[in-house]
Amino acid sequence: MKLTILFGGASFEHEISIVSAITLKQKLSKFDLSFVFCDQDHTFYIIEPSKMKAVTFSKGLHKKMPKLSITNGAFVQKGLLGSTEHSGTVLNLIHGADGEDGSIAALLDFFSIKYIGPRVDASVFSYDKRYTKWLCKARGIKSLESESLSTKEHSNIKIPYPIIVKPARLGSSIGVSIVREENKLDYALESAFEFDNNVLVEPFIDGVKEYNLAGFRANGKFHFSIVEEPHKEEFLDFEKKYMDFSRSEQVLNADVTKELELKLRANFEKVYKDLFEGSLIRCDFFVVNNDVYLNEINPIPGSMANYLFEDFQGSLEMLINSLPHAKRPKVNYEYIHSISKAKGK
Amino acid sequence: MKLTILFGGASFEHEISIVSAITLKQKLSKFDLSFVFCDQDHTFYIIEPSKMKAVTFSKGLHKKMPKLSITNGAFVQKGLLGSTEHSGTVLNLIHGADGEDGSIAALLDFFSIKYIGPRVDASVFSYDKRYTKWLCKARGIKSLESESLSTKEHSNIKIPYPIIVKPARLGSSIGVSIVREENKLDYALESAFEFDNNVLVEPFIDGVKEYNLAGFRANGKFHFSIVEEPHKEEFLDFEKKYMDFSRSEQVLNADVTKELELKLRANFEKVYKDLFEGSLIRCDFFVVNNDVYLNEINPIPGSMANYLFEDFQGSLEMLINSLPHAKRPKVNYEYIHSISKAKGK
Repeated sequence: MKLTILFGGASFEHEISIVSAITLKQKLSKFDLSFVFCDQDHTFYIIEPSKMKAVTFSKGLHKKMPKLSITNGAFVQKGLLGSTEHSGTVLNLIHGADGEDGSIAALLDFFSIKYIGPRVDASVFSYDKRYTKWLCKARGIKSLESESLSTKEHSNIKIPYPIIVKPARLGSSIGVSIVREENKLDYALESAFEFDNNVLVEPFIDGVKEYNLAGFRANGKFHFSIVEEPHKEEFLDFEKKYMDFSRSEQVLNADVTKELELKLRANFEKVYKDLFEGSLIRCDFFVVNNDVYLNEINPIPGSMANYLFEDFQGSLEMLINSLPHAKRPKVNYEYIHSISKAKGK
Repeated sequence: MKLTILFGGASFEHEISIVSAITLKQKLSKFDLSFVFCDQDHTFYIIEPSKMKAVTFSKGLHKKMPKLSITNGAFVQKGLLGSTEHSGTVLNLIHGADGEDGSIAALLDFFSIKYIGPRVDASVFSYDKRYTKWLCKARGIKSLESESLSTKEHSNIKIPYPIIVKPARLGSSIGVSIVREENKLDYALESAFEFDNNVLVEPFIDGVKEYNLAGFRANGKFHFSIVEEPHKEEFLDFEKKYMDFSRSEQVLNADVTKELELKLRANFEKVYKDLFEGSLIRCDFFVVNNDVYLNEINPIPGSMANYLFEDFQGSLEMLINSLPHAKRPKVNYEYIHSISKAKGK
């Protein structure tokens, strides 16, 4: 089965996307893989599988590889003797901006290229944490209370300390701080505002139980990963997350009751339903007093959360065979025809 | 001042986009205009201004005109002796799908082409009427109660008759019906579901006061059009809307009190703020018992609601000089470098 891994992007998570792609190369040996790299200037390159190493990109060696353009149905490589089309299904593995903000989704939809990944609507509701809150409210999913600050107005936060300060639109803990006392707030806000004009503040709950669950819907049925209880550190900073994105060993099922597992799955379904069709996502939950709270949606989790699935390759295959495709309306110019007729010209 | 009108699209509103573009050609005589047509197969053509007539498209004559591809910073026309770049600011005038669903926005953002029109987030919140409701709730804007139906579950509507049935994601009254009795419901739902898997039901208020207000923010300040009280028919069907999109004569300011005008403007600002930067939108409001309700956001109104502005060309110029541009993060590969070093390779 053919699959094109699309990675890179003009994103703060550019480097972890490279790490994700290299990891997936090892995990998807059953597939006929191609690798398309999107550099920070939005030029596409086709990367020879044997060159899929971090240094290829950090040393700029990718610039010597063939450039691709995107056109209806395929990435196209132009050569002296004509063009080669790379027309397989795409796995959107660009984390953060471009990949998760809806840009790549729109691009692939526009050019009728089939892909695994969140569609435009789903991207907007997962990429911006403010809109994730709106989604929760509308769909009856619990999430922690929050306050949204913009650069202009960041005066009186009502949530009691300790609090967590996050840029509204970044993943991988970039620009995130825990603030335990008011005199550390300015510094935390400054760090967060460096990355986004909008910042979210939430309560920070010491020792809160965290559980991650990945899954997708294929042929109308949900398929879930095991439940993971992530490593308990205050929270993962960027460097740790970076390493985290290269995980490939399957983890153990967290020690959760059947009842809690079903609750996590029910909440996952509420998030996913209709909106996230075509994507394999990971939802990160908090559990407080037996209640499940959505913390974050990862619509393109690091290395596709392969380590949470018993049969990762089989899961991906199922998803590929159940991808949505946008219908285009047929234009027949009947209004113009009828009006031209009425006007007698 | 250069301006490229982008119109057409694979949309049920393809034809009214053509009408809009022809109308704007007349209204923007001060500008140095180019016309880029996106056909229903997503091929771009550059249209000679003298050929900007409805028959050019209905007869398929545009297919003889030069094709364009989209690349970093411009639409490019390839010729035997090299390429010509069309790099001016774009006015996104594609109504409905493609133009208003975030696709064109993402495409232009991705290729760093400046444009007038809603960004991806704004598109999602205005294109799908369900998400407009979420926006209203989050921002404290009144809107009529509603129920959302999907193809599978359209049984027990609780809103009392008469009701209005609308596809969730179409403009220009396509697939919309007023239903006064339950025995007409099935037919109305069938018509609506023909266009969308999701349908919205709202109360229909006989004789409700309707007011339209257009505007935009430039250099941090809001600029409003006059208030229009649209023609009172039950509602405009597609054919009437089609004619409506070619309007070019300035309308009269509606007979509203200063107090109501300020209320309408305050609601417009709540909708627009931050989200709709870079676009000129029209908000359609209802007024019930002196309260303002948002009915619909038109992020690319027909012929850009030119007829509501005293100085339409000047307004557009102001907006062009105040367009947002997405910043791209600089990738320096510091994580890959530091990890490669730590690994000693």
